[in-house]
Amino acid sequence: MSQMHRQTTTDVLNVTEALRLASEQPASLRQKLSDLHVAEIAALIIDCRDDEQRRRLIELIDEERLGDVLLQLPEAMQEDLLAFFQPSDIEEIVEHLDSDDAADLLQAVDKPVADVVIDRLEPEERRGLAPLLEHDEESAGGLMQAELFKVRDDWTVDTVLKVLRRWGREIENLNYIYVVDDDDRLTGVLPLYQLLLSEPDQRISAIQDTEFPRAVAGQDQEEVAKMFEKYDVLALPVIDEQGLLIGRITADDVIDVIHEEATEDMYRLAALSDEDDLAEPVLTTARRRGLWLMVNLGTAIAASIVISQFESTIANLVALAVLMPIVASMGGIAGTQTLTVIVRGIALGRVTFANARRALIKEVSVSMVSGLLFAVVIGIVATFWFPEVGVKLGLVIAAAMMINLFAAGLAGAVIPLTLQRLHIDPALASGTILTTITDIVGFFSFLGLATLFLL
Amino acid sequence: MSQMHRQTTTDVLNVTEALRLASEQPASLRQKLSDLHVAEIAALIIDCRDDEQRRRLIELIDEERLGDVLLQLPEAMQEDLLAFFQPSDIEEIVEHLDSDDAADLLQAVDKPVADVVIDRLEPEERRGLAPLLEHDEESAGGLMQAELFKVRDDWTVDTVLKVLRRWGREIENLNYIYVVDDDDRLTGVLPLYQLLLSEPDQRISAIQDTEFPRAVAGQDQEEVAKMFEKYDVLALPVIDEQGLLIGRITADDVIDVIHEEATEDMYRLAALSDEDDLAEPVLTTARRRGLWLMVNLGTAIAASIVISQFESTIANLVALAVLMPIVASMGGIAGTQTLTVIVRGIALGRVTFANARRALIKEVSVSMVSGLLFAVVIGIVATFWFPEVGVKLGLVIAAAMMINLFAAGLAGAVIPLTLQRLHIDPALASGTILTTITDIVGFFSFLGLATLFLL
Repeated sequence: MSQMHRQTTTDVLNVTEALRLASEQPASLRQKLSDLHVAEIAALIIDCRDDEQRRRLIELIDEERLGDVLLQLPEAMQEDLLAFFQPSDIEEIVEHLDSDDAADLLQAVDKPVADVVIDRLEPEERRGLAPLLEHDEESAGGLMQAELFKVRDDWTVDTVLKVLRRWGREIENLNYIYVVDDDDRLTGVLPLYQLLLSEPDQRISAIQDTEFPRAVAGQDQEEVAKMFEKYDVLALPVIDEQGLLIGRITADDVIDVIHEEATEDMYRLAALSDEDDLAEPVLTTARRRGLWLMVNLGTAIAASIVISQFESTIANLVALAVLMPIVASMGGIAGTQTLTVIVRGIALGRVTFANARRALIKEVSVSMVSGLLFAVVIGIVATFWFPEVGVKLGLVIAAAMMINLFAAGLAGAVIPLTLQRLHIDPALASGTILTTITDIVGFFSFLGLATLFLL
Repeated sequence: MSQMHRQTTTDVLNVTEALRLASEQPASLRQKLSDLHVAEIAALIIDCRDDEQRRRLIELIDEERLGDVLLQLPEAMQEDLLAFFQPSDIEEIVEHLDSDDAADLLQAVDKPVADVVIDRLEPEERRGLAPLLEHDEESAGGLMQAELFKVRDDWTVDTVLKVLRRWGREIENLNYIYVVDDDDRLTGVLPLYQLLLSEPDQRISAIQDTEFPRAVAGQDQEEVAKMFEKYDVLALPVIDEQGLLIGRITADDVIDVIHEEATEDMYRLAALSDEDDLAEPVLTTARRRGLWLMVNLGTAIAASIVISQFESTIANLVALAVLMPIVASMGGIAGTQTLTVIVRGIALGRVTFANARRALIKEVSVSMVSGLLFAVVIGIVATFWFPEVGVKLGLVIAAAMMINLFAAGLAGAVIPLTLQRLHIDPALASGTILTTITDIVGFFSFLGLATLFLL
């Protein structure tokens, strides 16, 4: 990841102004863009109306920063814009990026074009990139960068300082020195400041931290993020299956991962695809969301089939049609509360295999307490609202409320815990399954009890 | 934040085993605990059945690590456990912590006890703590630590290296050197590796990065997190209103903030208090959630009042009671999709004042496309399901579906954008407002159109 330290300028350029300058005074816009932070340029590009406008601005961005700007755009937009570039242009962009960023950018390019670009690169750069492209984008290997400062464990502090002065300039965020043995196997890590505090003739093997945590290339990025939290480190070395040092991951890359994972969970809980993107075309979004809406339509129809079994009951007592959505709605909300707490608890590592049973008992207990409370409240409301049916209606809705809130608490905890046990993302589809259960249990218990006791 | 580099041991101690050892072989448990990572000890303590069990384990934790362990527990549990400690014990715990962690811990202690502890501290420690306790826990000032490495801008590289060798040992994660002028005003920042690459006689003022970003003490922690992402740095200096250097924030502290903020948004979207905690007692949780359930009960009753206006329509045509939840449910899901995308977009800085209008238009367009599609589907389903009413019922439910999905898209975007404009957290209560709208619009449009065209 590149570092750009310039502070936000006070008068930020807006899109209209930028596009005007692009036509009338391109040189002045080029100058203005070079004064902006990459994140600000990216915001301008996102704000354009269409790709044609975007390309007019992109033409005026400094070549060295174009890659960093593109990487800040939503993935779909990256892909669309990169489709307009020649392999030679992409090659130049890639040359200005760190290996992890270069790999990310190439993954947004059509495979055949990416292959042409990789073939055109200098052998040295190609060697750095190849292992990164091998790994899954969401693994430690996909997250790491190849640029790091590596020393042999039999060197002295003095040797390392000399090598550092000669070669260190090319590495950003150089805060840890990675120590390897003859076979390039990681033996330990040395924080840079430790080096400064040590005597020149000390051997690195004597001062390295051999217990420093390390990530393995195949590890999921979510696990890597958890290691950063657990050990409070600013960077982690990445090793392959043989223990060879192949890269490092810095905390700033992990911040992006944490955002991504939280967004994914939030989106999945809301019946959204995690690829849903504000910047993509209306029809693409409508199609993605339509899939989940279609699933919900199916479950809503299932709930309606339950209601239709009680048509004659409702015909006899229309008050039931008035009240039934209350029972279903309260179950949906209470169940979503439990579901969200459990899904988030699993994501943060607070709910584990060991304490899952306790979490389940707690959530069901809460739902029984709420059930009791809201049974009383809704029972009283219903009794006074429909005095012609009176206390019997109140008792029926109270019982249905207790049953449905109990089902909500149970389902809200059991669904994500079960998905987790099956190695499926606990957020995935759990909201839809939950409301299906609370709707069906809500309608069935209320209308069923009414059929038994009120007719 | 402290660094603990030990790797996870392969055979992790479980609670039952730990409690058995606590009674039978306390010395052996003390040894085992000292081999564990603080996060692992915290997990053991969370897993205990009650505070009595917890205290039996806490007694056997090394004094130097007890503070770090306590800080990993849920806040409510911290407070409960700290209530059993004497001020002298708390003082000893605090002495082993960095200033930011000490301040956090003291905020979990009863105010009078905390005051006693602060009075007992060495004057030097008290001086480091006082400014931290002044700031809001969720501001840059509340997040920062006082320990940092500070040099004068007129020193040479050689002087700095000498001072660093003498004093640097006490500071963890020393990756940046902070440069101040005569008045202690921050003039710039110098990455440690830059120091190594510079000539011994160079002046710091000549090599410092004067444009390095900085946080102001009063800034909200969410803004601070955004600065880390924007500038890809591993630490930020914190200045006060006068520009004086008062602390630094490291990336590992920000990772916690990012988790917290994401949890807060997720919880608020699910009608949960952000203080909801798996570890707190059932009745506390039931009370917190009950507040939101009560709000939902109110809005559900409002929706039922809408239905009750159409009692005679339903009595004439019970099919309406069967179908009406489908219209309401689809509106709720589609609206939640939009709401989640907008709330998350605001949180990540993707939806801004400048592009809010575009996001609104996009979301409403998506909802119209979905409305059209699902109007056709549900129209056909209803027509064949209730052939005695037939195509007229299909047309009515199709129209209601279009109206409700349009309202869902509009409300899902307008509610969070409006809350944001009013400087209220866009996630707060927005889910409840949304489903109130989609329920009421859904029932009213469907039953209203049915009354007009089907009777």
